[in-house]
Amino acid sequence: MKGLIISADGAEDRELFYPYYRLKEEGIEVEVASFSRATIRGKRNLEMEVDLTLKEVKVEDYDVLILPGGKAPGKLRQDKDVLRITQEFFREGKPIAAICHGPQIPLSAGLLKGKKATCAPSVKEELVQAGVDYQDEEVVVDGNIITSRLPKDLPAFSRELMKRLK
Amino acid sequence: MKGLIISADGAEDRELFYPYYRLKEEGIEVEVASFSRATIRGKRNLEMEVDLTLKEVKVEDYDVLILPGGKAPGKLRQDKDVLRITQEFFREGKPIAAICHGPQIPLSAGLLKGKKATCAPSVKEELVQAGVDYQDEEVVVDGNIITSRLPKDLPAFSRELMKRLK
Repeated sequence: MKGLIISADGAEDRELFYPYYRLKEEGIEVEVASFSRATIRGKRNLEMEVDLTLKEVKVEDYDVLILPGGKAPGKLRQDKDVLRITQEFFREGKPIAAICHGPQIPLSAGLLKGKKATCAPSVKEELVQAGVDYQDEEVVVDGNIITSRLPKDLPAFSRELMKRLK
Repeated sequence: MKGLIISADGAEDRELFYPYYRLKEEGIEVEVASFSRATIRGKRNLEMEVDLTLKEVKVEDYDVLILPGGKAPGKLRQDKDVLRITQEFFREGKPIAAICHGPQIPLSAGLLKGKKATCAPSVKEELVQAGVDYQDEEVVVDGNIITSRLPKDLPAFSRELMKRLK
């Protein structure tokens, strides 16, 4: 089993590192993809090495997609490779787990309309306007899409994610 | 079941947050103790709320002690409440998990001499000089003491910790 994290500079540090270490704790390989192979610097300057570029991602190599929040999703959602990758995970029924600003990515990929989801409070209105059934819960699961609001929801977010990987 | 994290300003952010969220993910309550009830600021300025002061800690309330690294253990190891708490966890056979600079605390509490342990590379010489059987491994377990070297060892550190809590 193998997980893919898509992120970029400005990521929320805890949302980037917690799932990264958590999958490894479970013995699951994890790779990080970004715009380039340059090291990602989180909002608090924690550094995460990048394994491959977005263009290099082959969805067939992975079983789960993780989308941390922070300032990264605002840029990532405009990238056509990110949208292609996210849509492909969805089509293949593989779990997509997005937290905080992360849900902006499946939203831009056209995957959230009419579905139950949550996100950071500052992103809520955008989801509501796009026809998402917004829920103010620590974690929301609709089909293969798992969403959470904030770093403090990481325990619940990860619990649901692990349930799906077992 | 309940865990206690002892830390202070200058903590290594990931070593503070990973076990905190990880125990919660497992449905285990966690409390953070420090010199005062003021919010802890990690090395990268991530903030962690404090539940109680070191003086207020009653070891009987907890099942596991976690000692993150960074700059915090250098100050904590000089505090007599920290040493009392750590010794009491040890005497009662409750797991003590220390990472990075964290092992300086059980070292100062007189609990590591003659035992196998690991720590941050910069702390290694201190352990060796004090008669610790230093091991360059991602995680080392000797009796109820679990030690690791660096943030990248958090998956192995947490895996061993969870094994002992189940």
